[in-house]
Amino acid sequence: MPTIAVDANGADLGAREVALGAADAGVPVLLFGPAGEIGDVPDHISVVDAPVSIAKEGDPARAARSTPEASIVRAARAVADGEADALVSAGSTGAALAAGLFQIRRARGIHRPALALPVPVPGNPVTLVDVGANVEVRSEHLVQFAFMGAALAHAVLGVERPRVGLLSNGEEAVKGTPLVQEAHAALRDRDTPLFEFVGNVEGNHVTTGVADVIVTDGFTGNVALKLMEGVSQTMLGAVRDVAMSSTRSKLGGLLLKPALRGFRDELDPERPGGAYLLGLRRLGVVPHGRFTRRGFASAIRQAARGAEEDVVGRTHAALEAAGALRRAPEAASEPPATVPGT
Amino acid sequence: MPTIAVDANGADLGAREVALGAADAGVPVLLFGPAGEIGDVPDHISVVDAPVSIAKEGDPARAARSTPEASIVRAARAVADGEADALVSAGSTGAALAAGLFQIRRARGIHRPALALPVPVPGNPVTLVDVGANVEVRSEHLVQFAFMGAALAHAVLGVERPRVGLLSNGEEAVKGTPLVQEAHAALRDRDTPLFEFVGNVEGNHVTTGVADVIVTDGFTGNVALKLMEGVSQTMLGAVRDVAMSSTRSKLGGLLLKPALRGFRDELDPERPGGAYLLGLRRLGVVPHGRFTRRGFASAIRQAARGAEEDVVGRTHAALEAAGALRRAPEAASEPPATVPGT
Repeated sequence: MPTIAVDANGADLGAREVALGAADAGVPVLLFGPAGEIGDVPDHISVVDAPVSIAKEGDPARAARSTPEASIVRAARAVADGEADALVSAGSTGAALAAGLFQIRRARGIHRPALALPVPVPGNPVTLVDVGANVEVRSEHLVQFAFMGAALAHAVLGVERPRVGLLSNGEEAVKGTPLVQEAHAALRDRDTPLFEFVGNVEGNHVTTGVADVIVTDGFTGNVALKLMEGVSQTMLGAVRDVAMSSTRSKLGGLLLKPALRGFRDELDPERPGGAYLLGLRRLGVVPHGRFTRRGFASAIRQAARGAEEDVVGRTHAALEAAGALRRAPEAASEPPATVPGT
Repeated sequence: MPTIAVDANGADLGAREVALGAADAGVPVLLFGPAGEIGDVPDHISVVDAPVSIAKEGDPARAARSTPEASIVRAARAVADGEADALVSAGSTGAALAAGLFQIRRARGIHRPALALPVPVPGNPVTLVDVGANVEVRSEHLVQFAFMGAALAHAVLGVERPRVGLLSNGEEAVKGTPLVQEAHAALRDRDTPLFEFVGNVEGNHVTTGVADVIVTDGFTGNVALKLMEGVSQTMLGAVRDVAMSSTRSKLGGLLLKPALRGFRDELDPERPGGAYLLGLRRLGVVPHGRFTRRGFASAIRQAARGAEEDVVGRTHAALEAAGALRRAPEAASEPPATVPGT
């Protein structure tokens, strides 16, 4: 069974909540954080006292470089050194991405790591990639994101042969920026058993189940992801306000409540475990800092599943078979992936 | 009172529905379309028999150039010749944009026309610009979109001093692509009584009322707009499904129905009249082809209001005072605005 290196710093509810999640997950865990706060843990968890946190640093890339004793850096180093098989961090996405890049490093043949997020859409869950690691990309990056996202959807989320779409402003291949048009042509021409390329997906079809994985640059992906969160919250809030607007409505709302509970469960962001850090030599999962033990347990279980199912190896094999690996070392001018905030 | 040139071709419900909308609007209208289908109209409408439609053409720019007898081209020419003061088209956005560009032409000092859409968010309506006319932009285009959107919000939508935000993947000025960072700096440095620049707006704040106008490129704007439509429909559909899931829930839904009706009215896309074509010498409004007479009436009234309140002149004056007009004729290499599909 794989061992997961977990950074306990940065969770809104504190390191103890992360430890409780690790306990619930039931897989071997190396837990990096303030031992005093973490307290007693079951046998399958080894606590490494690492009280220094960079989860709230404004410049996470710089902090990850200059703070080798930080819990996220030590957790990432444990993965790099082979003491653990995957990384989970309750801290900021930026710090996890930076520590992952510097310690675990990019997988061979990968241009840029990316962040993938499985979005819990009722009835039609969809994974967006990239949701913020790379605000500017080239078409070969988008092609690799498709493979990385598809391998994740297959191995961790259990989608047989994922349908992969390219986010654009129109369905036709000629729609989109030159970048998107180029990526469309490149994806259409690749032949891979890993996924089926379903072409461009417009904004209004992101939630209708036409694709399991939707590929885009990190700028558009971040805007899209947050827009989905914002619009669902606004709509549910508005429906709730309507349900409080009169005695008659209140009674209606009360009768609907039990059925809505199942719906809320389906939308629960803690279930998919958080954002996935793809394209490194090992898998990373970044649950949101506001998660409860339930979300942390889910992230740790998903990381273990990803390690067991060898997401990284599958991605590499599919990219190699399709001839989409980075051929030569990147030129010196290749910028590193930018590191987003939380 | 201004006269509005209206293209009656392209509406899903037919030219008669557009004519009924024009009748309801109660402002002088030059109505271009198939006279036989249009039928009887009240005195304030003059029908010009123009049966040729390019609303369904795959390449609207080409169709608008090569079909001078098309109803949308004739309507745009009437505006260009001064017979009417603003343009309304029930046909495709692409055809309206192309006909507008070729006939009415860009306003003096404007780099690129843009499409603005007032989105009916419950409690917090917000206007997105550009929603698809320009998939690639430069920062000075985004700066002008801010002025164009603010003038629209002020003169037509009645917002006193619009708050204008820039769509990005983080609130800080350093977030976003180099293009967005450059536009942020340029907007921060402009001083204008027309609007207040509120900085970057993330996706999750588009619907929370932090800005009245949100500026972005036409690719991101189109994806964002359609995503908002898709997510709201998915959420409302899911709530409806929940309300049908048991007898108890059905009773609850029934009790909520009257209150939900007001909510549906607030979300009604026909109320704001459609998309606004900004940056030409005269205002254009493009109601959606699926609108009913109510939406067409609204579009025509809004176009009249925009002409009366001189949206175009206000935009020009504010851009001039802020030193943001295009100084010299564009280089020959300047690509024309791309023409999106419907």
